[in-house]
Amino acid sequence: MKKIDGGVCAAQGFLASGIHAGIRKNKTKRDLALIYSQAPAAAAAVYTQNLVKGAPITVTKSHLSDGRAQAVICNSGNANTCNADGPEVAEKMCALTGARLGISSSDVIVASTGVIGQKLDITPIEAGMDELCQGLGRDGGPAAEAIMTTDTRKKEAAVEFTIGGKTCRLGGMAKGSGMIHPNMATMLVFVTCDAAITPKALQKALSADVQTSFNMITVDGDTSTNDMLCILSNGMAGNRVIGESGEDFNTFCAALHDVTVTLCKMIAGDGEGASKLIECAVSGADTDQAARTAARAVVGSSLVKAAMFGSDANWGRVLCAIGYSGADVDVNRIGVWFESVAGRVKVCENGAGVDFSEEEALEILKEPEVTIRVSLGYGKCEATAWGCDLTYDYVKINGDYRT
Amino acid sequence: MKKIDGGVCAAQGFLASGIHAGIRKNKTKRDLALIYSQAPAAAAAVYTQNLVKGAPITVTKSHLSDGRAQAVICNSGNANTCNADGPEVAEKMCALTGARLGISSSDVIVASTGVIGQKLDITPIEAGMDELCQGLGRDGGPAAEAIMTTDTRKKEAAVEFTIGGKTCRLGGMAKGSGMIHPNMATMLVFVTCDAAITPKALQKALSADVQTSFNMITVDGDTSTNDMLCILSNGMAGNRVIGESGEDFNTFCAALHDVTVTLCKMIAGDGEGASKLIECAVSGADTDQAARTAARAVVGSSLVKAAMFGSDANWGRVLCAIGYSGADVDVNRIGVWFESVAGRVKVCENGAGVDFSEEEALEILKEPEVTIRVSLGYGKCEATAWGCDLTYDYVKINGDYRT
Repeated sequence: MKKIDGGVCAAQGFLASGIHAGIRKNKTKRDLALIYSQAPAAAAAVYTQNLVKGAPITVTKSHLSDGRAQAVICNSGNANTCNADGPEVAEKMCALTGARLGISSSDVIVASTGVIGQKLDITPIEAGMDELCQGLGRDGGPAAEAIMTTDTRKKEAAVEFTIGGKTCRLGGMAKGSGMIHPNMATMLVFVTCDAAITPKALQKALSADVQTSFNMITVDGDTSTNDMLCILSNGMAGNRVIGESGEDFNTFCAALHDVTVTLCKMIAGDGEGASKLIECAVSGADTDQAARTAARAVVGSSLVKAAMFGSDANWGRVLCAIGYSGADVDVNRIGVWFESVAGRVKVCENGAGVDFSEEEALEILKEPEVTIRVSLGYGKCEATAWGCDLTYDYVKINGDYRT
Repeated sequence: MKKIDGGVCAAQGFLASGIHAGIRKNKTKRDLALIYSQAPAAAAAVYTQNLVKGAPITVTKSHLSDGRAQAVICNSGNANTCNADGPEVAEKMCALTGARLGISSSDVIVASTGVIGQKLDITPIEAGMDELCQGLGRDGGPAAEAIMTTDTRKKEAAVEFTIGGKTCRLGGMAKGSGMIHPNMATMLVFVTCDAAITPKALQKALSADVQTSFNMITVDGDTSTNDMLCILSNGMAGNRVIGESGEDFNTFCAALHDVTVTLCKMIAGDGEGASKLIECAVSGADTDQAARTAARAVVGSSLVKAAMFGSDANWGRVLCAIGYSGADVDVNRIGVWFESVAGRVKVCENGAGVDFSEEEALEILKEPEVTIRVSLGYGKCEATAWGCDLTYDYVKINGDYRT
């Protein structure tokens, strides 16, 4: 397996497009994205577990009940959530897309992101459909831009791998900067692949993957109403069909994980207002769940996040977060290290502080990617979670989002 | 029952003192507090549920095992947590206090608040003990100041009530501004009372009270390692002894609740960096637990908190928080109102937005105390939670706390 350039168009047979249709007032921002597979594709998705769900979630779930899809339509600027006519508008988006592409509207996945509780006007989407479809091409960049909200950069990743001698490619794009605290799914992530795989195997791979990828990132602890991660795999690589287990399935899962973790880190590092990516790697837990719970608590702590913003080696807040996380730990065995390309420093051993150089810690924490390494000291399970620091800009962005 | 002036010295027989002993570098800040009851008192406490517990918590639990105490010693500037010699230092604080006051060290409650993981030097405490004890008087103010950390103002409240014709007084002081997300207890809260009450009745009243008082406030979602709420009741009012049920017990509980809720609102409104107090009142739930869960999620949401800072009527974030709270709700029945002394505006009905005046909403949300009123629409249970907005200053305070 090797990393390659590109995103949703890295795999064979996938075309994408992104335009400014007029959903957002700012004319320099694209707001409507389309992904199209030239062949029908196996498809799977995971969704937000928020009880308040966007209308696109409901419609997509229904359309994916047969494990097949061929296109994705997605707008930014409006979440189409908590609107009485939401499902109708989401269905209309699929119908317009299907009609223009000559496919069934039930083979279209729909997603929306933006403000909750404001009606989504179908007019600009309808008016922009021609331009959107004519723009379909092998560059996934415009689509990756069109799904951005408060993101400061587009997020794409892709890998190449081999199944039974056939070269397959898998790539994806993501958006997500605020309201990021996924549970079973994340913000909007679209992954495409040209491998032949059964819908059941695809869903199995995806559902397992999110436990150690998107469910391990947090920006602000708010689980969105519109989180969705979907994957389309169209079989155009010509490989033998991948089933629900075995070496091929494992190869596929590894490729998927490479792309999803890359996108996770992009999302966390571009969290609203973030100045740095924070990784928490927990080892020595007796269960995967305990490791995950502890790691998520650390990157989710407002106090840890604020300390990281200030490059302050305030390890007591790390212990505090582990203590209230709900993970069953023995505090007196916990060790903590701060680490980055600038070095590594131990700050806590057996639950108590050790002498360390504040200057050295400062140099380590000033880097744009910092790892908080935690050893729980009583088991063999481990987990990694990703988040970002809490900055003035997070407050600025969210203090007046709607204007 | 009526509100009266004062704090921990409002009740008969209680003296208090607060000095700068030198634990904090800033000489203008008091850092050591003492409360003394002239008669032995029934005592009860609730503590943090964080697995990482400050040494004072462990020592106090042990000292309160007989339901009796006569003094409280408390320092700010250092949490005495995650230190190998922590328990020894906490015991030493009790021993010094007991020796100077002529009481058993096991009748002394000890508490600490401040940075985690830095050794607490007993020297300034020992050196300051004379001044501290000589300063004992009927003004609770200096003690209330001495327990402050990032608090911007001292927090005191008191009430007067009658048991069997005897006038009783109950008053308290609290500190807490960051790392506030109590679970079974809160930051440091000390309540004193001159009623005669059994230790069992006192513990029962306290444990019940926190469910609707301190367990319903949040500032930043971080449950502290040192949360402690303790109460001393010395019987000097001369009332018939209050047992674990009946009218007297209910009167006592009502008085306690009046003081604890007042202190709760003081803590939430003085949350780190806060510019306003946010109250979320949830009604129409089918269980108390569902109402509490929903109310806590709303005041705990970073996005709601940031919107409140911007006086932005972004009610979608309120629904989003309720949706991920874990409370079992029917989204299509939810109604939301914003309310303050400036008025009241309905923004959501049956889970969808309603037309409202943004100007009117802005005027309401600009007030220093704002209520988010939520109707879940399917039951008779209700709950209220308190929090504050998320501001630039929260980030500033926590980005570089230790320097």
